[in-house]
Amino acid sequence: MTHGVRPFDVDQLRAETPGCKNVVHFNHAGASLMPQPVIDAVVDHIHLEAKIGGYEAADQAAERVAAVYDSIAGLIGAHRTEIAVLENATRAWDMAFYGIDFTPGDRILTSVSEYGSNVIAFLQVSERGVRVEVVPNDDQGQISVSALANMMDERVKVVAISHMPTNGGLVQPAAEIGAAIRGSNAIYMLDACQTVGQVPIDVDEIGCDVLSATSRKYLRGPRGMGFLYARESVLPRLTPPMLDNHAATWVGQDRIEIRVDARKFENWECNYAAKLGMGAAIDYALVLGLEPIWERVHAIATGLRADLSALPGVTIHDLGAVKGGIVTFSVVDRNPDDVRDAIKKGNVNVSTSSVFSTRYDMEARGLTEIVRASVHYLTTPAECAALLNAVAGF
Amino acid sequence: MTHGVRPFDVDQLRAETPGCKNVVHFNHAGASLMPQPVIDAVVDHIHLEAKIGGYEAADQAAERVAAVYDSIAGLIGAHRTEIAVLENATRAWDMAFYGIDFTPGDRILTSVSEYGSNVIAFLQVSERGVRVEVVPNDDQGQISVSALANMMDERVKVVAISHMPTNGGLVQPAAEIGAAIRGSNAIYMLDACQTVGQVPIDVDEIGCDVLSATSRKYLRGPRGMGFLYARESVLPRLTPPMLDNHAATWVGQDRIEIRVDARKFENWECNYAAKLGMGAAIDYALVLGLEPIWERVHAIATGLRADLSALPGVTIHDLGAVKGGIVTFSVVDRNPDDVRDAIKKGNVNVSTSSVFSTRYDMEARGLTEIVRASVHYLTTPAECAALLNAVAGF
Repeated sequence: MTHGVRPFDVDQLRAETPGCKNVVHFNHAGASLMPQPVIDAVVDHIHLEAKIGGYEAADQAAERVAAVYDSIAGLIGAHRTEIAVLENATRAWDMAFYGIDFTPGDRILTSVSEYGSNVIAFLQVSERGVRVEVVPNDDQGQISVSALANMMDERVKVVAISHMPTNGGLVQPAAEIGAAIRGSNAIYMLDACQTVGQVPIDVDEIGCDVLSATSRKYLRGPRGMGFLYARESVLPRLTPPMLDNHAATWVGQDRIEIRVDARKFENWECNYAAKLGMGAAIDYALVLGLEPIWERVHAIATGLRADLSALPGVTIHDLGAVKGGIVTFSVVDRNPDDVRDAIKKGNVNVSTSSVFSTRYDMEARGLTEIVRASVHYLTTPAECAALLNAVAGF
Repeated sequence: MTHGVRPFDVDQLRAETPGCKNVVHFNHAGASLMPQPVIDAVVDHIHLEAKIGGYEAADQAAERVAAVYDSIAGLIGAHRTEIAVLENATRAWDMAFYGIDFTPGDRILTSVSEYGSNVIAFLQVSERGVRVEVVPNDDQGQISVSALANMMDERVKVVAISHMPTNGGLVQPAAEIGAAIRGSNAIYMLDACQTVGQVPIDVDEIGCDVLSATSRKYLRGPRGMGFLYARESVLPRLTPPMLDNHAATWVGQDRIEIRVDARKFENWECNYAAKLGMGAAIDYALVLGLEPIWERVHAIATGLRADLSALPGVTIHDLGAVKGGIVTFSVVDRNPDDVRDAIKKGNVNVSTSSVFSTRYDMEARGLTEIVRASVHYLTTPAECAALLNAVAGF
């Protein structure tokens, strides 16, 4: 999977990314641009399915499919039996969260910048008498770990944190959060949708019990694929909210046996092409190395943030002591949608983020929508200049 | 989408199916062989994502993605607001089934040949005091509609039926079942995984409230994609067991609003390439016409069944008054796995079906595993001869 790639020969990495020839992409936090080995893994498997049949192709690819679990485990420092591959990061997170046996009086602690999708799930289970509580931020706009520590008690069933929010570069202090929770009975769920592939992650260093991630963002894999990590010790506490004949076996007329490994959260059918594509994307990232990836993403985003903030009328909105590849901003007296659309006219992909995705945070800051420009290690000074020129044009 | 196809110019249909050049495929009930327009829809979208970005590609394909709902609705006689597109048929079925508010004493009625995956779900909810009851078969080995009618009472919450089982050609009398249920408060769930794309289906003629289906089988679409139909009148009775920011909106700090249409069962992220591929597969089937497809599948399967049963030592296992494209058999004194593997050595794809998939039925008939050869409209006399020769070789 190396394809002759040497770390951060950016020209080479861009040369094997077809999208780099076509667009100036600042939407890596939406979906990044797939490199050729990922595209090949997906498309080759589709053609194999077409050629010999979908089941027969899966049989033929069985070893490579099995290796995807090793790749994921290697990426985050887990064991392969703690990994489930699911249709996307949301369903991965859901299968763990909705697998918790909530009882009235249980508390869910979360952060100000938690992702809306997760909060919607909190509010759904809150109908069972579960309390949803938001841990305040510290002075730097990240979660106050001391406040979290003070809020912990035996009724805290879950601490659910988005590692990096959808609306800014903030990297939450995941390991410090883990240390504050350690020793309690709470399940620590880390939504790492925006950090996996960008930030080096070791689940033992962080101390999380559950971690969910997507293929399409910083991993540069295909859409419609994600994975779940569930720590071996927490697996018995999570009952899949749905079961099929992959997650369980119908062993007697009235009796089923549920798998004991994390694949109990999977279901039988999946998109094998996308699964192999995610595996290829992880292998690609591992060859580059997560440390150098993170170093470079961090440096590029820091530079872009500084340059954008120097433009008249531009306000940067990213919070936190450590900031990653997501850069958010607004332009005075300009509607963010208009800013995005104007920038996109110059073939520069940016997106926006609205209050519906991060209501706790956006309301607290009086924001309704902001522009999001997310960089990756592929991002060049020329691309940043193109973005800056477009924004300066207002 | 017609690509010059005239109904049942089989040579032409096979010519635009790359797999036909490579394998003799009797595993259409596992995953069929995709025709070129389906392959193109999938692969072209992957390349578009690679070229301009995954979100940007979805934006560009938005009209075609929206049209997939119209295609599905047209296929089964539903309205587009009653359709959800999901990762596969199992998750489609799950989102409806686990969305039912079961209370102790509720009854689930099902058929002898129900699919194991669904029974596993029944048994999971039976822990809440729900009773699972199997409606006996009639003399022809299909569900006894009169027995079902006699079993109906106000505690029947669900009647869940596999339209065609995974282990045989039996086509259950879906419309008669619907007539027997009509007027009750029970939700009629039809698992049409094996019939959609093979048998003409009209949800109003059948009277089902929920129908689930897959892309990869008789529709000849890609793997990892499926859909759910939920009748408008039943939608308010089904609460999605998981919610995200596609299924619901975070409208206030403590308040969410769930969608009212069937897309409340979806989640935000999906594999757009596979979704477009399923749409292309449905359009392809609609051009051919489900009536002629069914006529041809039925005739080919009937012929194959007769020819197989004429071989010494071969027993056919298909039940029911009406039998479709799935042909199941065993060879005296031969292990079904060995039969399958020996047949596959001749480049003929067949599969097996075990007691774990249809335990009620297989135990009742004293079967543990049988060989499954599933035909489609593509199947030729020469292919049937190849299969018959392989089986006769034992």
